[in-house]
Amino acid sequence: MTVAAPTIADLETPALLLDEARMEANIARLRSRLDGLGVPLRPHLKTAKSVDVARLLMSGPAGPCAVSTLNEAEHFAAAGVRDILYAVGIAPAKLERVAALRAAGVDLTVILDSPEQAVAVADASRRHGQSIPALIEVDSDGHRAGVVPQDRAALVAIGRRLEEGGAKLRGVLTHAGGSYGCDTPSALEAMAEQERAAAVTAAGVLREAGLPCPVVSVGSTPTAHFARNFGGVTEVRAGVFVFFDLVMAGIGVCLPQDIALSVLATVIGHRLDKGWILVDAGWMALSRDRGTARQRVDQGYGVVCDLAGRPYPDLIVAEANQEHGVLSVRPGGTLPDLPIGARVRILPNHACATAAQHARYNLVAGTDPAVRAVWDRFGGW
Amino acid sequence: MTVAAPTIADLETPALLLDEARMEANIARLRSRLDGLGVPLRPHLKTAKSVDVARLLMSGPAGPCAVSTLNEAEHFAAAGVRDILYAVGIAPAKLERVAALRAAGVDLTVILDSPEQAVAVADASRRHGQSIPALIEVDSDGHRAGVVPQDRAALVAIGRRLEEGGAKLRGVLTHAGGSYGCDTPSALEAMAEQERAAAVTAAGVLREAGLPCPVVSVGSTPTAHFARNFGGVTEVRAGVFVFFDLVMAGIGVCLPQDIALSVLATVIGHRLDKGWILVDAGWMALSRDRGTARQRVDQGYGVVCDLAGRPYPDLIVAEANQEHGVLSVRPGGTLPDLPIGARVRILPNHACATAAQHARYNLVAGTDPAVRAVWDRFGGW
Repeated sequence: MTVAAPTIADLETPALLLDEARMEANIARLRSRLDGLGVPLRPHLKTAKSVDVARLLMSGPAGPCAVSTLNEAEHFAAAGVRDILYAVGIAPAKLERVAALRAAGVDLTVILDSPEQAVAVADASRRHGQSIPALIEVDSDGHRAGVVPQDRAALVAIGRRLEEGGAKLRGVLTHAGGSYGCDTPSALEAMAEQERAAAVTAAGVLREAGLPCPVVSVGSTPTAHFARNFGGVTEVRAGVFVFFDLVMAGIGVCLPQDIALSVLATVIGHRLDKGWILVDAGWMALSRDRGTARQRVDQGYGVVCDLAGRPYPDLIVAEANQEHGVLSVRPGGTLPDLPIGARVRILPNHACATAAQHARYNLVAGTDPAVRAVWDRFGGW
Repeated sequence: MTVAAPTIADLETPALLLDEARMEANIARLRSRLDGLGVPLRPHLKTAKSVDVARLLMSGPAGPCAVSTLNEAEHFAAAGVRDILYAVGIAPAKLERVAALRAAGVDLTVILDSPEQAVAVADASRRHGQSIPALIEVDSDGHRAGVVPQDRAALVAIGRRLEEGGAKLRGVLTHAGGSYGCDTPSALEAMAEQERAAAVTAAGVLREAGLPCPVVSVGSTPTAHFARNFGGVTEVRAGVFVFFDLVMAGIGVCLPQDIALSVLATVIGHRLDKGWILVDAGWMALSRDRGTARQRVDQGYGVVCDLAGRPYPDLIVAEANQEHGVLSVRPGGTLPDLPIGARVRILPNHACATAAQHARYNLVAGTDPAVRAVWDRFGGW
């Protein structure tokens, strides 16, 4: 636990700021939406990687939650979380750590999409004398892993190998990552329905074959915010919504003023001949993520705001080196007067990637310069 | 200090591997080249961020070295390094930490390119009763910070403010980062000469004005390897050469088989309908850096090799999510048979960015699967 600096003016830069009020509003917004639709949230903690943020995100101290690494699972288990979904296809060599967490009382579920993985999970279940539960990953949008819901034979073969081998088929899961490429409400709604339908169809295939399928898990931040119907779905996963970012603003899932994460930086130089202001936040502090490059408005390496969090008109981080950010304005804009030593806040392209570059969150709220707390975060696998 | 796994087959994935033999050959190659040209190396430790690697890179335990953050300076100072150049334009608020390191016996030099910074360094010098030494950053290629060498008035004004205010003008520094965009030997040689000429010209301006300029510091990995003449230069800086990477191979500074850094990953899925193999190394393990996207051959998120470090023909990481890498072959290539659980090694676009995603190096040598040691690395500011 690091002691908080009195105000953001006292922080060493670059530093990661987290606006508590915005974060709480983001959490409340999705919770309220899902409550209205009658489906529980399983927050994905890969964005936050922080026990403090997890406590705000989860419906209770024991979970549920989703994670992207076993290191996350181990950290959150140590903090008392008991219902954890490891939502990346299981590698057989990782099953020893899975079994160890389960033996310690954590209800850890794995995911898979092949008979080979099902055999490995069944073998590990017998070896460790416990039925390791697994969800079958379903491909709802062709963007990454999963069995397509039309491949009934594969779904049933995987399910049978789990159940007959001593593991547990707990259900199906899908993630419409393709939703990040949708940027109209109607496209987002359609993608949400496509995601739901794929998972529900796959669940139906398993049940028709006499296999159990209690869990039907769907979700991405965009689809969670645009779905109109979660019929047949038992839980919704989402992660980046807790902080939001410029990519999410670019597709219309949030407004720029909802973005809770920013990088505090200090002006270290000027190249007025080139229209540049140099700051001490480069890609090491911002990440190399350029998710908005493929969107209608390219925000460079980030949107530059004043210390109160208000964007300077047209000012973005146009280029980044390891520890240098180059601020410039879009054509027609006017470079603000920011002398050497002035401080700015930079909104990130992708909250997961930017947060991962930092070891801690400095908590702020609104335009108050006070640093209210420092929350540690972790990385690694 | 983490205990080394017996072999790379025992490592949890993803994991960062460092080939000691390749690294030592890379270091020996540049040292030999600069020895032949009669100029000393000041290795830039921003790539390695490891005390163990630093000891191999530096000419002696006390340095010299360059760093990109004060956190690096503090880490290396604690390990006994005494001659450190902090090679990012100084922010006034950072001068307290600079003065503290100097008071502890470290000869820490800062860089700057404005009269405002010179006044801040002079003020801090008087406040702390010590002459803080500074190099004036010179712009040799228009790519980032620095005073253009033709701006005699600015160079002299900065120098005088330092010297007359109680600080110390130690010389000039330039970094031809534009060399990363050159990809023929003749363009690289020309850029090296441009870099040298800019620094030497600026040094001449200061000396003609009666100001001291003992240090003339130049360097980037490409120019350090292609310069034919370092006349007037007193030291050469380079960083990424210690590991090399696909960007450096793409511009012809090294061969792919010189790249000492790789990310070990495990196969976690197949989408043979799409020609994909999924591994557990996504952008969190590889970084979001896509430096080769602007080169003649786009290597995606990395070139995929077998466990002995030999590239599979045409196999690259075509796409990356947070913890998923998607392997596919270039048109005309054949996807290798890599079953669930198989392991591969991925060569990075940019060694600085990929290494920064990891907390330690697992040392290997050539095709031997033994993990010889684990070296910690650090991040932060």
